[in-house]
Amino acid sequence: MPDDSAIQAALARAVTIAARGPEHGPNPRVGCVIIAEDGTTLGEGWHRGAGTPHAEVAAIADARSAGRDVRGATAVVTLEPCAHTGRTGPCVDALTQAGVAQVRYAVPDPGDASSGGAAVLNERGIPAVHVPDAGASALTRRWVTAMRLRRPYVIAKWASTLDGRMAAADGTSVWITGDEARDHAHHVRAGVDAIAVGTGTVRADDPRLSARPGGEESAHQPLRAVIGQSETTGAQVWRDANAIALRTRDPHEALAILHAREVRTLVVEGGPTVLSALVREGLVDEVNAYIAPALLGAGPSAIEDLGIGTMSSALRGQDVNFQPLGADILVTAHFSRGL
Amino acid sequence: MPDDSAIQAALARAVTIAARGPEHGPNPRVGCVIIAEDGTTLGEGWHRGAGTPHAEVAAIADARSAGRDVRGATAVVTLEPCAHTGRTGPCVDALTQAGVAQVRYAVPDPGDASSGGAAVLNERGIPAVHVPDAGASALTRRWVTAMRLRRPYVIAKWASTLDGRMAAADGTSVWITGDEARDHAHHVRAGVDAIAVGTGTVRADDPRLSARPGGEESAHQPLRAVIGQSETTGAQVWRDANAIALRTRDPHEALAILHAREVRTLVVEGGPTVLSALVREGLVDEVNAYIAPALLGAGPSAIEDLGIGTMSSALRGQDVNFQPLGADILVTAHFSRGL
Ligand SMILES: NC(=O)c1ccc[n+]([C@@H]2O[C@H](COP(=O)([O-])OP(=O)(O)OC[C@H]3O[C@@H](n4cnc5c(N)ncnc54)[C@H](OP(=O)(O)O)[C@@H]3O)[C@@H](O)[C@H]2O)c1
Ligand SMILES: NC(=O)c1ccc[n+]([C@@H]2O[C@H](COP(=O)([O-])OP(=O)(O)OC[C@H]3O[C@@H](n4cnc5c(N)ncnc54)[C@H](OP(=O)(O)O)[C@@H]3O)[C@@H](O)[C@H]2O)c1
Repeated sequence: MPDDSAIQAALARAVTIAARGPEHGPNPRVGCVIIAEDGTTLGEGWHRGAGTPHAEVAAIADARSAGRDVRGATAVVTLEPCAHTGRTGPCVDALTQAGVAQVRYAVPDPGDASSGGAAVLNERGIPAVHVPDAGASALTRRWVTAMRLRRPYVIAKWASTLDGRMAAADGTSVWITGDEARDHAHHVRAGVDAIAVGTGTVRADDPRLSARPGGEESAHQPLRAVIGQSETTGAQVWRDANAIALRTRDPHEALAILHAREVRTLVVEGGPTVLSALVREGLVDEVNAYIAPALLGAGPSAIEDLGIGTMSSALRGQDVNFQPLGADILVTAHFSRGL
Repeated sequence: MPDDSAIQAALARAVTIAARGPEHGPNPRVGCVIIAEDGTTLGEGWHRGAGTPHAEVAAIADARSAGRDVRGATAVVTLEPCAHTGRTGPCVDALTQAGVAQVRYAVPDPGDASSGGAAVLNERGIPAVHVPDAGASALTRRWVTAMRLRRPYVIAKWASTLDGRMAAADGTSVWITGDEARDHAHHVRAGVDAIAVGTGTVRADDPRLSARPGGEESAHQPLRAVIGQSETTGAQVWRDANAIALRTRDPHEALAILHAREVRTLVVEGGPTVLSALVREGLVDEVNAYIAPALLGAGPSAIEDLGIGTMSSALRGQDVNFQPLGADILVTAHFSRGL
């Protein structure tokens, strides 16, 4: 049996390679490192996106292609191996067939269909033990939230002035922030499965809602979703089939439709009506607020009418992070409720 | 004559020692270094606050007490030497009598009474030459603004949530931000001449408006000013004589009264009515916005009704700075108009 420090080193490596996988997509980013008794690496692999081999299968293949025997070895994985057949076969079978002697995994699988892999392995006499790891948790945070809550992980994104206005009195909101902040938002878009706005924003701004980090359309383009009952025919969001009209004002229903489409991470980019409805229903996991050093004195706030009457009832963010972007600043905070 | 690098070194030193003077008070922070032909320092001094010797006089005294002769030497000063008799005599006379051969100064004196010192020296055959320096300008920025505009340098300070609320629906604003942000605001108070709020804030919050950096009342307590026509008798601001009622709604008039009291830097801490009136009249030089990672969904913004209708007319801040304070962030920006 490899010792604890060998397991920790393998786990750190597994996290590193897992991060090479795509941020978006229905599956989490997972890394696997298979190590021998003395801690030497026999094979490693990571998941490259839906329809490609899971990390465990990739690691077994990597060892085989190098002519290394994984029988009796230890598989260290960032996520509990799956026990179900999805687009690929169950990882617990691949590990069993390869003759792996034991498994260490960092994050328990919260999926309905995929979970229970550790129990299956243990029954088969292959000890599968949970070894918590902060890096692995961070990597799967959004996906775990989506699987547990059976809805997308929701990032509420907006840009506002120092006095909290997300648009001017006449409804114009182009451009509150500068180039760096806008480019950052495009990088965020490129890493998510879908972008949603309300019909009001489509009518006011007719946004493209494409991901253009560095000014170039990224290879992955998130699904564009428009929330609301009214028609917005002819708007730019409908330019191709990668768009969906969520004809409801019920944010739970809107998220359920997206969940059924395997949307794991959703950025909601306004306007105030849709953002406020999501916050009110406790459906916002993270806020990305880009704040420009400007003053307007009039215009809507990003968030209206939560039914909060007094300061002590304010919703408080956690894990707050600040990122200066030119003259603007991005404040990110988590608002998940006791996950 | 000392060479340029000797002058620059002396100026850098003068800026450093000037910063030892008090931030508050009617006079600017000034430093003076007197150097010989070869650049060696003969004496140095800085201004320690109203009623004490000016930097030039202190530097001459420093040289004398060390038995060093300043005749024929070069005086390097962060600010143009004054030519008037205020609480102390004119510095140009002190420099002339000491036999200084020439003067280099970084910031021209914008004062009505005190300016013209360089011209007087030049007439007397003592070349006094302007040598711009960023450090010296930064040190005198607020005071120069106050002297040029004949009103206090105005810092608009507020605390708000991520959605731009400075109070909840019921008017409570205690506490939006955390300990670090509040302590920072106390440090700012300790460095200014006066703190102003409107009568509405006095009625809503009955604030003490004292400077308590690190939890301790600082030796210098700024003047407390209340702007508005109504009575606020019995409020905590009136607990001692270090307070003034500015019985006007005209922000120009309010600032003129404070200018007559030699208030050079004023922090205005709300509420929205008073802050907005000052911004509307172009009387705010700097914004200090403490932003908490919280959401309220209702409640006033710090700034209301500026008559701005569209995004392209937003007031834009300059020289933006960010300072994380616990989970909150302080955004400072300058809004002076073409000073
Ligand atoms: N600064 C920024 O980051 C930013 C971002 C986006 C937008 N904006 C600005 O925001 C303004 C648009 O605001 P908005 O609030 O009208 O836009 P919105 O939230 O995008 O759309 C509102 C519309 O969505 C539908 N809807 C969806 N869920 C709803 C619910 N739970 N309750 C009620 N209606 C719901 C309703 O239309 P139906 O009748 O179709 O159901 C409603 O009129 C524009 O000025 C835009 O420029 C700014
Ligand atoms: N989060 C923060 O940083 C912060 C800071 C301070 C206050 N607050 C909150 O702000 C709220 C109070 O807001 P507020 O706007 O009533 O307070 P305010 O601005 O302090 O006071 C308003 C009053 O000042 C007088 N005034 C002075 N200049 C005026 C002008 N140009 N135009 C009109 N009136 C003028 C008027 O009273 P007269 O009739 O006496 O002339 C007016 O009612 C409270 O909820 C408080 O908790 C929050």
